[in-house]
Amino acid sequence: MSRVSLTKRPRAVVLLSGGLDSATCLAIARQEGFETFGISFSYGQRHAGELRAAGRVAAALGARTHRVVPVGLGALARSALTDSLDVPKHARVEELGDEIPLTYVPARNTVFLSLALAWAETLGTGDIFIGVNARDYSGYPDCRPEFIAAYQRMANLAIKAAVEGTWPVRIHTPLIALSKAEIIRRGLELGVDYSLTHSCYDPGPGEVACGCCDACLLRLRGFAELGVPDPIPYQTL
Amino acid sequence: MSRVSLTKRPRAVVLLSGGLDSATCLAIARQEGFETFGISFSYGQRHAGELRAAGRVAAALGARTHRVVPVGLGALARSALTDSLDVPKHARVEELGDEIPLTYVPARNTVFLSLALAWAETLGTGDIFIGVNARDYSGYPDCRPEFIAAYQRMANLAIKAAVEGTWPVRIHTPLIALSKAEIIRRGLELGVDYSLTHSCYDPGPGEVACGCCDACLLRLRGFAELGVPDPIPYQTL
Repeated sequence: MSRVSLTKRPRAVVLLSGGLDSATCLAIARQEGFETFGISFSYGQRHAGELRAAGRVAAALGARTHRVVPVGLGALARSALTDSLDVPKHARVEELGDEIPLTYVPARNTVFLSLALAWAETLGTGDIFIGVNARDYSGYPDCRPEFIAAYQRMANLAIKAAVEGTWPVRIHTPLIALSKAEIIRRGLELGVDYSLTHSCYDPGPGEVACGCCDACLLRLRGFAELGVPDPIPYQTL
Repeated sequence: MSRVSLTKRPRAVVLLSGGLDSATCLAIARQEGFETFGISFSYGQRHAGELRAAGRVAAALGARTHRVVPVGLGALARSALTDSLDVPKHARVEELGDEIPLTYVPARNTVFLSLALAWAETLGTGDIFIGVNARDYSGYPDCRPEFIAAYQRMANLAIKAAVEGTWPVRIHTPLIALSKAEIIRRGLELGVDYSLTHSCYDPGPGEVACGCCDACLLRLRGFAELGVPDPIPYQTL
């Protein structure tokens, strides 16, 4: 009797940044019936707090495992997230511009998806979840649907399993068209504990969020629109 | 007078494995007028000899700099090149099959090109050279022209400079249609010293090439077809 294999859940690799979006994405992957494998990257970001948050989120949401992969991206890429450029601060969310900000890290999602792809093939799956969002996002080119579609096409030509027809690569982006408030509502329905997450680009002592970087402002607006308090503390509030 | 900028060479990132193909690729990039920036990856491969070879090649062929980037690919990917699987050996080159071999590393060129893309954007260029070859190669899916074309399309949607129209990403594959003998002939014309290169998947003491892995057999056949001696020593010859 092959009862074990009949009840076995399909596997998915889920990219975890420690933030609100990827936590919600993990909860959605689990709800869709996947056995989840969390992956995060130590790439020279200024704050290790996000990696700790990713580990907390993976454990709380039942990921089978969580890997932190070292990758020397920070040394190749000049960005306010990886070196001494100042993280831009704003008093209000309306001040966020349309241009690509200083916190942009060249090719970041391309690099992260590629390492997730390698792990997925080793795990015997082509399903990869990434919490990119093209609505309430920070203007990064590698968060747009056309980038994700092109990445998936490329990936299906890149790996042995896809080329041999064993399984296709599918890049799942369940948050791509949602507003931040819609993401939070979905996550709360699925039991995500947002007090475990870390979004701030420039936290102070004790990893307390600054409240005025792009990531904090978008997060705060999402909770405000939903009429729900954000469970994490802020320096400026 | 802007004499300096008028005479400034365009920049290109060149992927260097330490092997024969990437050394030839670097020589071609230089001949085409590029100021070259060599990049190699410490990814858990079993032999550091190839990274030393990449450094020798970069220096000998006038690369402006050579970066070795750590990336935790080996821990994610099961392959005869990164863990304890035996490297396949053959007595003759005719024994090489058409199937993808055990030395395949999942998503390797995808990961490497993505890190090269990040560095290229930081350096202010979209030109990347990779010495992939779809003729005398080892059957890897990520060495084929359709993979490279899909990668370039994706990359032009991934990075800020390409999306804003500042410069396009161009993945140069000058070796893709050449036989190994043609690659070696081209390299010799350009002054490549192949005694500096390292191709073997499973070298013995003193980094002496085995002479019977896929990489050694293809290399030896290339020199033999050209009627030129391979300048490196082999254990089995």
